[in-house]
Amino acid sequence: MALKNAFYAQSGGVSAVINASACGVVQTARQHPEQIGQVYAGRNGIIGALTEDLIDTSFESEAAIAALKHTPGAAFGSCRYKLGSIHEDRAQYERLIAMFRAHDIGFFFYNGGGDSQDTAYKVSQLGAELGYPIACVGIPKTMDNDLPITDCSPGFGSVAKYVATSLREAALDLAAMSRTSTKVFTLEVMGRHAGWTTAACALAAEHEGDAPHILLFPEVTFDEGRFIGKVEEALERYDQCVIAVSEGVKRPDGEFLSASGLKDSFGHAQLGGVAPLISNLIGAKLGCKCHWAVPDYLLRSARHIASETDLQQAYRVGRAAVEFAIGGRNAVMPAIRRLSDAPYRWDIIAAPLAEVANQEKLLPADFISADGFGVTEAARRYLAPLIVGEAYPPFKNGLPDYVKLRNVSVPKKLTTDFAV
Amino acid sequence: MALKNAFYAQSGGVSAVINASACGVVQTARQHPEQIGQVYAGRNGIIGALTEDLIDTSFESEAAIAALKHTPGAAFGSCRYKLGSIHEDRAQYERLIAMFRAHDIGFFFYNGGGDSQDTAYKVSQLGAELGYPIACVGIPKTMDNDLPITDCSPGFGSVAKYVATSLREAALDLAAMSRTSTKVFTLEVMGRHAGWTTAACALAAEHEGDAPHILLFPEVTFDEGRFIGKVEEALERYDQCVIAVSEGVKRPDGEFLSASGLKDSFGHAQLGGVAPLISNLIGAKLGCKCHWAVPDYLLRSARHIASETDLQQAYRVGRAAVEFAIGGRNAVMPAIRRLSDAPYRWDIIAAPLAEVANQEKLLPADFISADGFGVTEAARRYLAPLIVGEAYPPFKNGLPDYVKLRNVSVPKKLTTDFAV
Repeated sequence: MALKNAFYAQSGGVSAVINASACGVVQTARQHPEQIGQVYAGRNGIIGALTEDLIDTSFESEAAIAALKHTPGAAFGSCRYKLGSIHEDRAQYERLIAMFRAHDIGFFFYNGGGDSQDTAYKVSQLGAELGYPIACVGIPKTMDNDLPITDCSPGFGSVAKYVATSLREAALDLAAMSRTSTKVFTLEVMGRHAGWTTAACALAAEHEGDAPHILLFPEVTFDEGRFIGKVEEALERYDQCVIAVSEGVKRPDGEFLSASGLKDSFGHAQLGGVAPLISNLIGAKLGCKCHWAVPDYLLRSARHIASETDLQQAYRVGRAAVEFAIGGRNAVMPAIRRLSDAPYRWDIIAAPLAEVANQEKLLPADFISADGFGVTEAARRYLAPLIVGEAYPPFKNGLPDYVKLRNVSVPKKLTTDFAV
Repeated sequence: MALKNAFYAQSGGVSAVINASACGVVQTARQHPEQIGQVYAGRNGIIGALTEDLIDTSFESEAAIAALKHTPGAAFGSCRYKLGSIHEDRAQYERLIAMFRAHDIGFFFYNGGGDSQDTAYKVSQLGAELGYPIACVGIPKTMDNDLPITDCSPGFGSVAKYVATSLREAALDLAAMSRTSTKVFTLEVMGRHAGWTTAACALAAEHEGDAPHILLFPEVTFDEGRFIGKVEEALERYDQCVIAVSEGVKRPDGEFLSASGLKDSFGHAQLGGVAPLISNLIGAKLGCKCHWAVPDYLLRSARHIASETDLQQAYRVGRAAVEFAIGGRNAVMPAIRRLSDAPYRWDIIAAPLAEVANQEKLLPADFISADGFGVTEAARRYLAPLIVGEAYPPFKNGLPDYVKLRNVSVPKKLTTDFAV
């Protein structure tokens, strides 16, 4: 096979460890100079491909590439952008082929969640559909942990470690104050459809009665009466109550609870925030002081408290993607396969993109406790190993020393622009 | 001097390192068995003293006491409770004296912020006013950093490190997404009156243009027009804007901005949350997608990212309090004195409680930039050393391994109850 260049891009909401996958891709490609020429990164995901806005990673030193392993965010920029089908939106694919030809690209790596694997899958069809052969490999990433087949999605383990650690810490704060002040603390976590991150909060508890006392999943319809009863029960038993809630919790009519019509004094509808709503409800019904937190981006970018297990998996799927591609595979995604729970052993297999794209893996029913407000032992067994190990970034002047790449542009070769 | 027992209690909102002060007190007292008998801790601050709800710390092992250094929250419970003056509320003081006599207490250590130093100051007057001699020493603690005389308040350095780290991480997330998605991120931090924590967010920026781009202090009246202009300017220059805002930002009429009449669908006034309000305003005026975070308790309990400098100071003021007391001092508080900025050198002096109690140290005018939306070099010089050094807690199964004390009660000796 003639030497070809590779295209790599990052897509969707970012994570604390997506750059570790980038590191795995670039380092592994550099170890195979007989098969892969340059690695060009798309600036802002597939948009960089469509607009021929490419970054030449060969300008980055070995040290800078290694530092990606400890840097959150997306070093090459990400995007939320979904390609149409080849038949509906042929112009986009012809543009991609033109760019690939111009830059002699034979490998395509796309790093993201379900939507991104859909993009990767569509690009993988270019050979069969439009006669441009390309080895296309998806790389899993999503803090939501909702990709199918793979045991977990790189990014999730670090989020799980962050929320369980933060909840354990905040619960100690609440316990200290509850005698004379706040009695209820609500932590809102990301997750529109799948309750994985909320479930991970349960890891904060070691013993019966430890926080969190109540979990609210998107998979379980919110029932105000039962919920308030559960809060009262916790207050009676522990004189305090810690709640973790998914942003995507839904009312019986199927609407997001967070869409329940908050208005501010400017007259605008309130953006998100189910935790303040829950807190208000408890305050009004039970008359106790409530605090709430919405960490939002802090949660998925908290590289300072990343899981070593997650980091290793993120790096390994990046490496495996390159190995699959130079081994002649197309339309696959490296997936993590669990071999045992304790000790946690795993390896990497190839999942067909056709089976990964646009699938959403929700919390299984047997992970949710009978009353709907907690998790089962099966969930704990699944979650526990994913947060193991600390992987601190280097610090300088008291702050994490994150790398900023040079991100030198590849000179454009196409003579036309393309609007996205 | 005859052997006397000591009373120690924790008060007010807790911090990531208040237990390190407790560790300093107990370890130092144990090193002076010829002067201090038992250390009794008040369960939930001064309430434990008034209700004779005491914890015998001699049941705690050396290892458990040492583990306080890495455990957030308040190991003996805290409270929000302010004593009246000796003249107005004599019964409370007579009750304290009865408890002190019953348990042979000759040393009183009270660990907290401005209100708590007021309590300590009042107790210090028991000898002169009511004939019960007691060595009373306040121990500084407040994440708000608003105690006077001391260079900083233990608890603040760790909050500063947490917010600067978290903001730097979230800003990388925003930078990755801003091309096609969120353009503005707002981080709300605690601080009703003093803008120290918001100022600390500025440490996240290393270079011109780095986040945060706008700071909103309680010391600077919120001007909607100027603020929106500043956001527009950041969006034009950087295609993104990161804002840090104090919960206590005020409108021109002196009201808290967060009290601007948010209502939820249940018809209840919204609890706090100035970040969602700011985000809504920007969304409505400029039409861009905004994200916001309110870490709340996460911010002040984040022992996992504590500042080593802060930890050492918290421990040292605990030690110094005991040394002052056995040295015969009364009505003082160990205060940190800065000897130089870089390298940061400090020692501990005795501040009179009369000068500490009920004082609030706001951000000085020369720490706020001319336009009111940033900090000066003087502020950076002051803040920079406070976040230096990492002091990770031990981890077990992927989570911080925090100690839970036995907290064995001291048998009651008084025959009457006291209602608080």
